[in-house]
Amino acid sequence: MRLTGVGVGPGDPELLTLKGQRLLGEADVVFVPVAAGPAPAGQNHLGAGDGGEPGYAERVVLAQAGSAHIQRLAFSLADDPDSRATSWAGAADAVAAAIDGGRHAAFATLGDPAVYATFAYVAAAVAQRRPQVVIDTVPGVTAAQDLAARAGVSIVEGEETLALLPITAGQQRFTTALAEHDAVIAYKGGARLAEVRAALAEAGRADDAVYGARLGLSDQVVGGLPAQGAGPYLSTVIVAPSGRRRSRRD
Amino acid sequence: MRLTGVGVGPGDPELLTLKGQRLLGEADVVFVPVAAGPAPAGQNHLGAGDGGEPGYAERVVLAQAGSAHIQRLAFSLADDPDSRATSWAGAADAVAAAIDGGRHAAFATLGDPAVYATFAYVAAAVAQRRPQVVIDTVPGVTAAQDLAARAGVSIVEGEETLALLPITAGQQRFTTALAEHDAVIAYKGGARLAEVRAALAEAGRADDAVYGARLGLSDQVVGGLPAQGAGPYLSTVIVAPSGRRRSRRD
Repeated sequence: MRLTGVGVGPGDPELLTLKGQRLLGEADVVFVPVAAGPAPAGQNHLGAGDGGEPGYAERVVLAQAGSAHIQRLAFSLADDPDSRATSWAGAADAVAAAIDGGRHAAFATLGDPAVYATFAYVAAAVAQRRPQVVIDTVPGVTAAQDLAARAGVSIVEGEETLALLPITAGQQRFTTALAEHDAVIAYKGGARLAEVRAALAEAGRADDAVYGARLGLSDQVVGGLPAQGAGPYLSTVIVAPSGRRRSRRD
Repeated sequence: MRLTGVGVGPGDPELLTLKGQRLLGEADVVFVPVAAGPAPAGQNHLGAGDGGEPGYAERVVLAQAGSAHIQRLAFSLADDPDSRATSWAGAADAVAAAIDGGRHAAFATLGDPAVYATFAYVAAAVAQRRPQVVIDTVPGVTAAQDLAARAGVSIVEGEETLALLPITAGQQRFTTALAEHDAVIAYKGGARLAEVRAALAEAGRADDAVYGARLGLSDQVVGGLPAQGAGPYLSTVIVAPSGRRRSRRD
């Protein structure tokens, strides 16, 4: 029995690796995460629940490996810890059952399976249920790397240092990172862009920030930090050293 | 005229993205970096110079896009700044000439073109020579992401934070990062593993470190930090929160 966490990249199906494509095709079943029920505001990357729109990860699987092996796993995003725990346990049970009899399951995870990935929790829960499972992963391009390419930014060069954090870790950690590192990548800032703006202004680095959301989709946003308002959950901010952004003509 | 920096991943040809493969095939010419003259000790990722062994990036291009369009660019690694500057200017001249007449050149860069990549310097030098060039990039999987997959490590989860730095930035910056961040990735530590060991011991985090070099090659090294000795230039150390490494059976 084997479970492979496949990093499918940031959403653009062409940013899947060749190895990821191969393993999605070889697996007996490919699990994709969806929201249980309608996706909450700003979280449409998870699709619209069991019978609705596919989420970002499922779209990559559909585009590059077909629909034959796909099975949706519904994760509750409710505030209630009990319903969340119940839905996670149900997901882990489904994956565990799918690998019985020596079968091979893949789990499609956005970005990279080692970087803030749902897969880490799924893998731990499946290993509890089936201690003999072989777990491996395929690395994938993260949203920040995709944003750097789309915005024409070189993030770090030479002896520069980088900090990577979720804004949910708190504005103070973002402020400290801005003071101590040449470059900073902040994830999951969509709902907290006011804090991002405040910290950047305080550090005098607002002009060095690029912002991206829904990368690779028809309604993608790539540019400077929006002057007001909020963004989707999966938004990304890159703060690179001044003058690092290439002018783009394409 | 167009110049595309293609991140070809850490060395394993299968970790190239589908988009990278497409653009390597579409470009009129694909430049790959090699060392001018024999590669210095520990830097065999650059191949053995103009007529010798291909470097890591060239091997990926050969495996996934064929040899028809490949042109080697020799970079001097000499200590003498004048010969380095001369070889870099020559490389930029060659790329600039290749895109004249509206042609499209690709430059294959290991890892990701926004993360400690030679491409950043090449792109700036070519833009000076041909201000009208369109420059774009394709993101790629980094060595650290590949090491995390091969070592079974989840680097950051939840609200954890990560610092990324080259050991060439100095032992003090590594020590500070170990104190302030849940996870730390250190690049280019091969020649300075003694400093890495000392900083990890001081921070009490030696057991949380995994080390990788020559990933994806027949002589790859993946495991704990070697107790003594040095490694190649392109080695990677990941320090993740305790207990994060999956036991692996494959």
